[in-house]
Amino acid sequence: MTNQPAAIGTSARRHDAAAKVTGGARYTTDVRLPGMLHAKVLRSPHAHARLRSIDATRARALAGVHAVLTREELAGLSPTYGYFVKDQPVVAMDKVRYVGDVVAAVAAEDEAVALRALELIDVVYEPLPDVPDVTAALAEDAPELFEEAPPGIVPPYGTGASGHLRPRRNVCYEFRYATGPADVWQECDHVFEDTFAFSRMNHFHLEPFVTVADVRGEQIEIWSSTQNPFPLRKELARVLRVDENRIRVHVPYVGGGFGAKHNCKTEPIAILLSRMAGRPVRYCLTTEEGFLTLSQHAAVLKVKTGVKADGTFVARESEVLLDAGAYSDGSPLVAEKAAYRMPGPYRWTHVKSSCACVMTTTTPAGPFRGFGATQSTWASESQVDMIARRLGMDPYELRIKNLKRLGEPFVPGESGIDSDLAEGLDTVAGELGYHRRARTPNRGMGLAIGFKDGGGVNKPAQARVKVTANGAVYVNSGTVEIGQGASTTLCQVAAEVLGVPLEQVAYAPINTDVTPFDQGTNASSGMTVMGRAVLRAAEAVRAQVLEFAARQLGCEATALTLENWAVRRGDEAPIPLPGLIMKVFGGTGYEFSGEGFFKAPNSPEAPLDAPCVFWEIGWAGAEVEVDPDTGKVTVLQLVASGDVGKAINKLVCRGQDEGAAVMGLGQALFEEMRYDGSALLNGEALDYRVPMAEDLPERFVSVTQEQGHGPGPFGAKGAGEGAMVPVAAAIANAVHDATGVRVTALPLSPERVFNALHRH
Amino acid sequence: MTNQPAAIGTSARRHDAAAKVTGGARYTTDVRLPGMLHAKVLRSPHAHARLRSIDATRARALAGVHAVLTREELAGLSPTYGYFVKDQPVVAMDKVRYVGDVVAAVAAEDEAVALRALELIDVVYEPLPDVPDVTAALAEDAPELFEEAPPGIVPPYGTGASGHLRPRRNVCYEFRYATGPADVWQECDHVFEDTFAFSRMNHFHLEPFVTVADVRGEQIEIWSSTQNPFPLRKELARVLRVDENRIRVHVPYVGGGFGAKHNCKTEPIAILLSRMAGRPVRYCLTTEEGFLTLSQHAAVLKVKTGVKADGTFVARESEVLLDAGAYSDGSPLVAEKAAYRMPGPYRWTHVKSSCACVMTTTTPAGPFRGFGATQSTWASESQVDMIARRLGMDPYELRIKNLKRLGEPFVPGESGIDSDLAEGLDTVAGELGYHRRARTPNRGMGLAIGFKDGGGVNKPAQARVKVTANGAVYVNSGTVEIGQGASTTLCQVAAEVLGVPLEQVAYAPINTDVTPFDQGTNASSGMTVMGRAVLRAAEAVRAQVLEFAARQLGCEATALTLENWAVRRGDEAPIPLPGLIMKVFGGTGYEFSGEGFFKAPNSPEAPLDAPCVFWEIGWAGAEVEVDPDTGKVTVLQLVASGDVGKAINKLVCRGQDEGAAVMGLGQALFEEMRYDGSALLNGEALDYRVPMAEDLPERFVSVTQEQGHGPGPFGAKGAGEGAMVPVAAAIANAVHDATGVRVTALPLSPERVFNALHRH
Repeated sequence: MTNQPAAIGTSARRHDAAAKVTGGARYTTDVRLPGMLHAKVLRSPHAHARLRSIDATRARALAGVHAVLTREELAGLSPTYGYFVKDQPVVAMDKVRYVGDVVAAVAAEDEAVALRALELIDVVYEPLPDVPDVTAALAEDAPELFEEAPPGIVPPYGTGASGHLRPRRNVCYEFRYATGPADVWQECDHVFEDTFAFSRMNHFHLEPFVTVADVRGEQIEIWSSTQNPFPLRKELARVLRVDENRIRVHVPYVGGGFGAKHNCKTEPIAILLSRMAGRPVRYCLTTEEGFLTLSQHAAVLKVKTGVKADGTFVARESEVLLDAGAYSDGSPLVAEKAAYRMPGPYRWTHVKSSCACVMTTTTPAGPFRGFGATQSTWASESQVDMIARRLGMDPYELRIKNLKRLGEPFVPGESGIDSDLAEGLDTVAGELGYHRRARTPNRGMGLAIGFKDGGGVNKPAQARVKVTANGAVYVNSGTVEIGQGASTTLCQVAAEVLGVPLEQVAYAPINTDVTPFDQGTNASSGMTVMGRAVLRAAEAVRAQVLEFAARQLGCEATALTLENWAVRRGDEAPIPLPGLIMKVFGGTGYEFSGEGFFKAPNSPEAPLDAPCVFWEIGWAGAEVEVDPDTGKVTVLQLVASGDVGKAINKLVCRGQDEGAAVMGLGQALFEEMRYDGSALLNGEALDYRVPMAEDLPERFVSVTQEQGHGPGPFGAKGAGEGAMVPVAAAIANAVHDATGVRVTALPLSPERVFNALHRH
Repeated sequence: MTNQPAAIGTSARRHDAAAKVTGGARYTTDVRLPGMLHAKVLRSPHAHARLRSIDATRARALAGVHAVLTREELAGLSPTYGYFVKDQPVVAMDKVRYVGDVVAAVAAEDEAVALRALELIDVVYEPLPDVPDVTAALAEDAPELFEEAPPGIVPPYGTGASGHLRPRRNVCYEFRYATGPADVWQECDHVFEDTFAFSRMNHFHLEPFVTVADVRGEQIEIWSSTQNPFPLRKELARVLRVDENRIRVHVPYVGGGFGAKHNCKTEPIAILLSRMAGRPVRYCLTTEEGFLTLSQHAAVLKVKTGVKADGTFVARESEVLLDAGAYSDGSPLVAEKAAYRMPGPYRWTHVKSSCACVMTTTTPAGPFRGFGATQSTWASESQVDMIARRLGMDPYELRIKNLKRLGEPFVPGESGIDSDLAEGLDTVAGELGYHRRARTPNRGMGLAIGFKDGGGVNKPAQARVKVTANGAVYVNSGTVEIGQGASTTLCQVAAEVLGVPLEQVAYAPINTDVTPFDQGTNASSGMTVMGRAVLRAAEAVRAQVLEFAARQLGCEATALTLENWAVRRGDEAPIPLPGLIMKVFGGTGYEFSGEGFFKAPNSPEAPLDAPCVFWEIGWAGAEVEVDPDTGKVTVLQLVASGDVGKAINKLVCRGQDEGAAVMGLGQALFEEMRYDGSALLNGEALDYRVPMAEDLPERFVSVTQEQGHGPGPFGAKGAGEGAMVPVAAAIANAVHDATGVRVTALPLSPERVFNALHRH
């Protein structure tokens, strides 16, 4: 690794760049198998109804129809699934619970025939009262979505002493956490109580939910657009009651997921239809159906904060209600995170948090980029600004005063903060010109710090690196290339360790039969968890190669260096490895292969079972102009920044931060799944407003901080979520700065801002 | 492994059985990709000609044509390939060298368009004199097929002191070997010199040569019907001048190969056309084109044997000429084996062998089931019978007198014989009723012993076994399921070691990106080489699991046994592993993964660089009736037997032996690629006569011997070639016994036998 240019810290071209810009990249949507059928599903028109009867006789008789799946065909299976609570049926069993709930599925020669067949399925519903929101759901006489406890309820991970399931009406899970003495409330000079509303976004991944399934005899083979192939395999094996190794999961490129593509989505239906039809089945949702499949959690967040007269933070208690929608999906874990992260990056004497997942007759909610931290940061960072203004302090100063120091633990038993929070805030404030700003009517600036534990909890990762006799390197890992660039950056880690050019390292496609086990592509864990497994695998191979060469050369491995697939002893000329290897192994060679494993240690002291892998911190600063006549917020400047510890690939980090910031911008200004009762009003691409190129701020800056304290390879931290989390609060804080008016609900639409201005 | 029923030694149902009998098994021929084009090639009508010019302008202009490949498009590549001698061009460069040599290739919307385009390619040839057989090729004034030494000539494996390249006219390689004092010829009471002719078979694999290639950007992805994915990847990388990891080789089920499907066949053309067209390309040969692609080696074998008056063998010298056809392919290695195996399983004081690969203007010859041993056994075992009759001895007695003992080395530095040869011969003779036979006119019996070193030379194999938290086991190996049953038997080895039912073990599909490296599916090496790698991988996993469990239970790993995915301490109740694993790894678990490597040791003393892995011995006994009026040979009884050491799967072994014996029957009686000069006369399925069900002998017995001396897992040896090798000689010996007439050329067609009878 002496003369070889570094493989990390560059802006190396992504491995997937050429294929993606030329249209050659293959996604699950592109998979075509001979004889492949197409699936469509019948969805409930009712928000809540008992399923009296279902008769698919006419559909089955339609020419071109090869299989119809209704609840009858689920006999003998474990027909419900869920990340923690197994409450979502493959197709409706006794009831439907939201408009769009899946009632039946058809596989036919083409989608048109399948759609026609759906019209021939006769369903008799008995409508029941709906439960459109958390208030309705928690009412004493609210209708119950689940009359019996869903099957297979399991607590989330580990012993989770602080979290627990509560048999409350329409609550699938509740999490509580407290630390420090509650009597410090008496020492507070001021106590502020505020309530915030958080809107529900759609994930809006450009590649829809899609699975191609091919069941042949006992072998189930799927290509699926999923973030978590191994957990998916396990859940499918449970549902289908087969051994895991009868299910082969291939994951081609994935066109975005943002948390949505975990656990069962299109997979069970595609598999069951293929098994029934004896032909491959493609089941691809439309964008509209995506809105009916999973969303972010809307939330109501009550925050009570006690401070000293000088602004010192003392105590914070919070209660969060997440709208989990009709099925629990990943809600319990999101609830834990939303509550746990509510203290934010500040020093408190006492903290108490709770969060309940409330079931409503709306689209199920689940994991979403930010994973609860978006909700908690929205409330926390809005309130920090409100408190500063109430105390007559500058919000920047109030933050600086209370921020934790580098290395200070978050709560007892937790990892210490691994970013210099003040340095990050100064970077963003400086870039924004926060301290030099002139007061201009209707213009204002705001700051915010997004705060989440990153890298997942209790998340093991296994990786393999193998190298041919000629020095061609493969990285085998279950981390999905979902657009984040992991298929390049993980190769950079291996290239650096092995001293070969990045071009010589390839990232293998994922197939659960042969790819090393991984928990999934989520929680910004690609570099801090899988990256460490890849690092260890590459180091294992490096050690093997050096030991092999040392044996051949009759020296110690420590006397050798590895560079460009040659070994070198001191200043001697490099000895190419291919010749050495072929001499020993003959024929067509050999491959060195090393495995690496990483898992953050468990800890009984840590509130969530294990200290977090790293802290994913995002800072945002915004300057806005508010039109008082229309309420329209124009973002003049947006500065977003994440601390990536060490950028393995600068361009990839920038791409992650910019993408995250724009998603935050959408959350701040435009995006919201709007309901009329239980009926979704804007569940299609034309009506649902995502940010477009023209919505970008006039000045849009992303700053990749490399503070160097990360636990990943070469000091790296994770990226991808941090820069999204604080954006909405920074913009709301800027609107407050511009207008003196606080908007406590998202998005900051002209209508909402106008109303706030004129209530004022 | 105590209460669990044994996974080995059974006749367990094959993993591929259900898929294959229901038509669900996917072969390369079944692969379809969206937008896939179809390739056809233009073949030379001349046996030998200079390529004056080639003009594809009109073909390129044809509607539906997407790419045309001629020698011009090979610029910048290393355009010739070959297993040892790189003499075969992807498409013809300066010359064509046999009728059927590939001149150009077209990719078009469908095969019909491609065929039409071929007619529009204008080629000007300058015909040259042909070289139809070895006699013509070795004539002093013979035309030279290669005017310059082919590029990239490399000696075969290792230092190969005894083998060497010789710049003889039209000889691509020559091998010589000698041991023991040559002056023992003086001590011989009789010296017999005989010459034998061996006919050329077609491999006749039911799945044709076929590749689907998909080149996207820098990534080359192929699905190919190949026996040796990793060596293929290496050779393609050399030809295409790319890193090996830019070529991803998938191997679905392979529908037979018998040696033909090694190295480049359809792959380079499919890849280059796909790269040019920017679309996937399927290049699938017809059966007729298979006859123009590769064949077995026809051979002329001179054998000179010196014996004592009492029948004691003393010395044997032999000269073999293999007809290598137009390109060298695997000929050098086949030549080494043909010569090296010529002594057969007998004790000699002096041995001297040579074999030359002679280039002719016919279909290239290459590896074929038996790999040179079929040729050498045909000559050797025919002559042993002839000598017995000349000495007035029973051929059985002459063999018994001279057979090597168990453990006796073959030649100095070589492995000892690992079968009791006499026991095997007795088994077959007994089953045939050889010693009880009554003399009946025109009926006779013959015996023969096939003899080859098995398991390949210098052949490393790597394997991986991984196990999910729930105990679902995967075997990852590069051994191709080519019909031999390896995907089942290798799983049986893992199941036995891990103490789980065979149904719980899956064999993963092959993809060179993630599958452990392997030298190839050949040389009956599946169980003795890869089986040992799988055994070690499974043992590594077993050790990991026991150590993991011991840590959790606070005991020594040696105190635990593993059974049905539970551990047990002494007589205590078994503790299921899934719970133990989930407790530690949480989330969705973990996979234990172990790697195993095996390579027979090199040895400077061994004539072929390394002692052989095992001896693949086949015994055959035949009873025939010869019709003196027509020369038709009817096989009344055929007894074929291989010693498999220990049958991992009895039914699989029987299938291998029966298949091999029937292929031997075809060689003995029917099969021969017949040439008129350089023109193949019977190169299609209707004219080329393979054995059919009705050709099976009235009594057809295969005896799987399990002598227990194998080096493989649980004492296994390899299988699949042994029972083919001796069949032709056994039948010729029986014909001799029946008629008193010796036929020294194959096949024993009615015409040939009739002529022999009437010359007599």
